[in-house]
Amino acid sequence: MRFTSERRLDDAVVEREFTLGEIPGILWTPPSVPAPLILLSPPPLGLRKTYSRLADRARHAAADGFATAAIELPGSGERPRWPAAERALADLRGALEAGGPVGEEIVDNLILPLVDRAVPEWQAALDALLGLPGIGGPVGYSGGVISIGTRLAVVEPRISAAVLFAGSFVPRAILAEARRVTIPLHVLLQWDDEGNDRQAALDLFDAFGSEEKTLHANMGGHTGVPQFAGDAAAQFFARHLK
Amino acid sequence: MRFTSERRLDDAVVEREFTLGEIPGILWTPPSVPAPLILLSPPPLGLRKTYSRLADRARHAAADGFATAAIELPGSGERPRWPAAERALADLRGALEAGGPVGEEIVDNLILPLVDRAVPEWQAALDALLGLPGIGGPVGYSGGVISIGTRLAVVEPRISAAVLFAGSFVPRAILAEARRVTIPLHVLLQWDDEGNDRQAALDLFDAFGSEEKTLHANMGGHTGVPQFAGDAAAQFFARHLK
Repeated sequence: MRFTSERRLDDAVVEREFTLGEIPGILWTPPSVPAPLILLSPPPLGLRKTYSRLADRARHAAADGFATAAIELPGSGERPRWPAAERALADLRGALEAGGPVGEEIVDNLILPLVDRAVPEWQAALDALLGLPGIGGPVGYSGGVISIGTRLAVVEPRISAAVLFAGSFVPRAILAEARRVTIPLHVLLQWDDEGNDRQAALDLFDAFGSEEKTLHANMGGHTGVPQFAGDAAAQFFARHLK
Repeated sequence: MRFTSERRLDDAVVEREFTLGEIPGILWTPPSVPAPLILLSPPPLGLRKTYSRLADRARHAAADGFATAAIELPGSGERPRWPAAERALADLRGALEAGGPVGEEIVDNLILPLVDRAVPEWQAALDALLGLPGIGGPVGYSGGVISIGTRLAVVEPRISAAVLFAGSFVPRAILAEARRVTIPLHVLLQWDDEGNDRQAALDLFDAFGSEEKTLHANMGGHTGVPQFAGDAAAQFFARHLK
């Protein structure tokens, strides 16, 4: 892990850009250290395009005493293009435009390779981040592509609690993995999310094996998560990571 | 409204029992007045049997600056027996024991007369309570039988926000009324509630016409609402009634 820039935001949060091998990332740390860490997995639009939303969440988390870190997903942002993923996305868009149901094969081709590549990258990032002075356990995960968060929650024992956003297609294989998740979960569902299958989200929530799991459903579309829902997710982390 | 007893609880909350005509009720007021009011509708088990849960919610609400009041539902507790309601309940139990689906007629016979009788009683209680010194608007409703809360939210403009518990059978007629509800709603659903049809609860949530409505689903059975879910409901009232 190599830091490439550092600046202090006006609320004394330190924002550092880094690269981990070829993967770009951003680390935000609060003034009070050592701080527990929340992994802030971006949506697959790239760190640059989602920077303002991520930084906003990072600064709220810092006010609660948390460090946060985001890394670029494979094929996103400024990372090398991933032709197979682009073809899978084109197939999905084609199916959506045709108005028919989206076949399982299309969902599998889009999501499973992304999960297979992204999860070890998050684990490598965790190795590096937990070695930094100022970062202490426990670790939370808050993220974008719900299948990545599901797999991480199964395979990565250092993650103690997760906030997941229902809002992407979920392969049947991930639904099966969900039964093996046991950490506390806080799942956000935008009830009228135009790009999301509500029933699939409810099925996934039902499948999680966790004894403590909470679903917060709110009105509005994909990016319309209300402020009070963000506050509730922050309270979930405060309850479980402190 | 006639007060029949008064005692001061150890946290300085004043608990007064009253009768409104023949209806028994309890009013809890915090030390700081005038206080906004939350109507605390009990489950149909009677005020005595649910006293400890109601008093616990009342004291938490008082700590947040709210007065709370509960009245006995028709046919419950020490109120006169209501043979038609008892027959309807027996029919429901028979259908549940037979293991088949519960017919619409059984649900209608059980719930609609209860709603028709209870709602005007709550409105009369509201008339009396809002006339007391120490009670000020706005008014919230937090309650047990979700069909009663739904009808009240439609017909009673003095209620500004409601916490509803998904956990009872819902007639089709109430589902239609739900579309006319416009106040902010916070709906609690116990995901594994043995006496509740989860899909019916989700359908009712979907039907509410409110621009702000939130569903909080948690694990556990009917009476297993976790403490943090109660806290979230309290924050909802704090946001809307202050």
